[in-house]
Amino acid sequence: MPDAAPTPLEALRARLAELDDLGRVGGLLGWDQQTMMPAGGGPARGEAMATLERIAHERATDPALGELLEQVDGDDPLVRVARRDYDRARRVPTELAGAMALAAADAQPAWLEAREKDDFAIFAPFLERNVELRRRYAECFPEADHPYDALLDRFEPDATVEEIRDVFGRLRAGLVPLIEEIAAAPAPPEPAGPFDVAAQRELALELARAIGYADDAWRIDDAVHPFASSVARTDIRVTTRFDADSLTGLFATMHEVGHGLYEHATDPALDRTTLGTGVSMGIHESQSRLWENCVGRSLVWWRHWYPRARELFPTALEAVSLEDFHRAINVVRPSLIRVEADEATYSLHVILRFDLEVALMEGTLAVADLPEAWNAKMKELLGVDVPDDRRGVLQDIHWAFGELGYFPTYSLGNIVAAQLWKAARAALGDLDDRLAAGDCAPLRDWLGEHVHRHGRALMPAEIIERATGGPLDPQPFLDYLEAKYRPLYRL
Amino acid sequence: MPDAAPTPLEALRARLAELDDLGRVGGLLGWDQQTMMPAGGGPARGEAMATLERIAHERATDPALGELLEQVDGDDPLVRVARRDYDRARRVPTELAGAMALAAADAQPAWLEAREKDDFAIFAPFLERNVELRRRYAECFPEADHPYDALLDRFEPDATVEEIRDVFGRLRAGLVPLIEEIAAAPAPPEPAGPFDVAAQRELALELARAIGYADDAWRIDDAVHPFASSVARTDIRVTTRFDADSLTGLFATMHEVGHGLYEHATDPALDRTTLGTGVSMGIHESQSRLWENCVGRSLVWWRHWYPRARELFPTALEAVSLEDFHRAINVVRPSLIRVEADEATYSLHVILRFDLEVALMEGTLAVADLPEAWNAKMKELLGVDVPDDRRGVLQDIHWAFGELGYFPTYSLGNIVAAQLWKAARAALGDLDDRLAAGDCAPLRDWLGEHVHRHGRALMPAEIIERATGGPLDPQPFLDYLEAKYRPLYRL
Repeated sequence: MPDAAPTPLEALRARLAELDDLGRVGGLLGWDQQTMMPAGGGPARGEAMATLERIAHERATDPALGELLEQVDGDDPLVRVARRDYDRARRVPTELAGAMALAAADAQPAWLEAREKDDFAIFAPFLERNVELRRRYAECFPEADHPYDALLDRFEPDATVEEIRDVFGRLRAGLVPLIEEIAAAPAPPEPAGPFDVAAQRELALELARAIGYADDAWRIDDAVHPFASSVARTDIRVTTRFDADSLTGLFATMHEVGHGLYEHATDPALDRTTLGTGVSMGIHESQSRLWENCVGRSLVWWRHWYPRARELFPTALEAVSLEDFHRAINVVRPSLIRVEADEATYSLHVILRFDLEVALMEGTLAVADLPEAWNAKMKELLGVDVPDDRRGVLQDIHWAFGELGYFPTYSLGNIVAAQLWKAARAALGDLDDRLAAGDCAPLRDWLGEHVHRHGRALMPAEIIERATGGPLDPQPFLDYLEAKYRPLYRL
Repeated sequence: MPDAAPTPLEALRARLAELDDLGRVGGLLGWDQQTMMPAGGGPARGEAMATLERIAHERATDPALGELLEQVDGDDPLVRVARRDYDRARRVPTELAGAMALAAADAQPAWLEAREKDDFAIFAPFLERNVELRRRYAECFPEADHPYDALLDRFEPDATVEEIRDVFGRLRAGLVPLIEEIAAAPAPPEPAGPFDVAAQRELALELARAIGYADDAWRIDDAVHPFASSVARTDIRVTTRFDADSLTGLFATMHEVGHGLYEHATDPALDRTTLGTGVSMGIHESQSRLWENCVGRSLVWWRHWYPRARELFPTALEAVSLEDFHRAINVVRPSLIRVEADEATYSLHVILRFDLEVALMEGTLAVADLPEAWNAKMKELLGVDVPDDRRGVLQDIHWAFGELGYFPTYSLGNIVAAQLWKAARAALGDLDDRLAAGDCAPLRDWLGEHVHRHGRALMPAEIIERATGGPLDPQPFLDYLEAKYRPLYRL
């Protein structure tokens, strides 16, 4: 007797499983490209990834999927999110999606050349094209209050310009005076290297294991730009990089393991659905920043790990006390480059980009005027003079990809990390003691329960509300910075 | 102005490019699974690979592809091979393809258990199901003279039982008496290890580079079962394994680099078509065996490399002369296990399997009688008594996958390698001198010109005919073995 025909829900689940598979295969291709692929494989890899994306897009927008979504009953998270994904994917004409991909591919070499020659004019027409296409993209979502909302939604579902403007306004109001005070205070001394790279690798793996890395379900490899990728819930690939001059590789590792842990601890019931992954870039970044900064740059953490660090780097650290080490890994210094910025100044780099992106989308700022606007804002927010566009408006690759709307999620990560950190500390009375004993299990379990397991089944705002009892709020992050830096800088 | 609609040939090429991409992505998933994937990734990897295969099968059998194949003019290799692939894929009902995949998946754990418990009865019903499905598969190709031809064709296009029976008959007639003579002669001493694994790795890479490996387009990694995979023409992944007790890893490396070189040296004009890969398993195996055996086990090769080997393994090799080393790497010994067999006895293991597979397909041998038939044939061909099924009928995984028709290609590889070797030696007058100087370029170029560059644009028989001036012929292989072993064994 043949099997009964699948129900609409079974058919829907099979289609979503396939979409999830395709996305993860694409992720593996990207991971391999950054870690394993010989250089000669590059062009063919680009073609293979484009083919996979085209097939995935075809299937994500297949009218037969739409019919199934009408046939299934109910409004459980699987169906709700699938309907949302389908609707958003269908809104964007294939021709526009193709033009966006093409414009991004064209813009990247122009951006590289512009940066190399420190000549924004080379990049400007390509950026104009990218911005124009993003405006057309935004027009596909006419119900939004602001054209930038459609861009935000790709990375942070349901986020709006209105909310982020408010949150970033409060964040900026708190950050600017604190950073001014810190900048006026004497900077702590920083230990000089070299820090043996093999020893850093060893310590990084020990830290990763303490956080939740396990050999049977993770890998760690080197990559020029560290990232984390979830090939499957039990196949997490983190990457990192080490540099003998500093210990930044340890923090990069904790950051990426934080991302990996989120993916690893989603509910197994969500495997091979489109729910079994992080819900937004902002919530994802909250997980990486929490482990990198709230845990990794805390005094209690190093109470446990500093003896081991000294064992591994005896020469560099022998004359450095735990307290001085803690001060050194928390230096605040207004600077030009976002990716090198510290925990406190970082958000000002993001606020600058957010303001400029919104102005570009609103049409109140022309691409040609971007360098001037950039430099003025750097002066205003960070008190820094920008010597050239290479270290200014041309520093990030995101706009060459046409990716407007991504930057804000970095700061949302800092904000949400501090909210979760505050809630976890309140819930787990002895969190400091446990971390000082090297025990991450209580924090890991709390995050698993309140954030990780939900995957995409809860929206970002729901996760924040349920975990912290309130909405997105920059105050805990500001309180956290005040509480950390005032004693460190003796303000 | 919009672009003109693609011509049927352009549309066909786009579809074939996509099929090629999907196949290579599947290859990368397999490579990663064997080399990089943490154990936990296994189940999800199986699902992802099945999804990719399903999508590739859908697209390979899409009626729209059939229409394009009717619309395009001409009979150039691209169109001819695409028509052949489409026709063969369409002949097999999706339901049967699914049943074959399922039966193979079910049979593998049964085979593992049967092997572990040395109990063929555990595996027998699963093998029966596999054989039954292969019979149904063969029925999809009623024009074939023999049902086994349809199975052969999957690995060796246009090969037939009739031709292989003839060739294997002549091969067996020459091999059996030679091996009997060798077995009666005293065996040469073999150098005892240990051979430092790091030093083996170093030498293996040097040998690989001499053959044609280059860092910008290849990788080499460890795998339990060595294999080669072409992620792209300029992204060749070979794998190997080392064992401190012997130098077999060097030969495994040369073998896999031979496979890799074939894929690497296909004509770049065939990139992203379905022609840019090896034409058959037999021709592929000829490339691996040629480098492993004809080159790698020759005296001239080691004239160049033995001093380096002695430098790397001073203790193990200090008392071993070049001539004794050459004898040691060419020991012939009838034995139980195919994958451990030497160059001379190997083909008898294959002939045994071919005879049994054909009898299974013809229905003249029942699965239940397979162990007895196996043991009788081992005695007849190799003079060996089989002590248990684990070291007999249960030793190979192929039948658990349902793969009947694959084994013959291993021997075709030996035969074709010797034919090509003879032709190359005649064409390149000073080949021995060049190899003795460590220079593989003339041989590599000759193989590139006569075999590699064609990819699938020529059929196996055409490649053999054009390169050697005649059809598939076991005589050069027999001559090669006679010329090598008579002096070595002083017969």
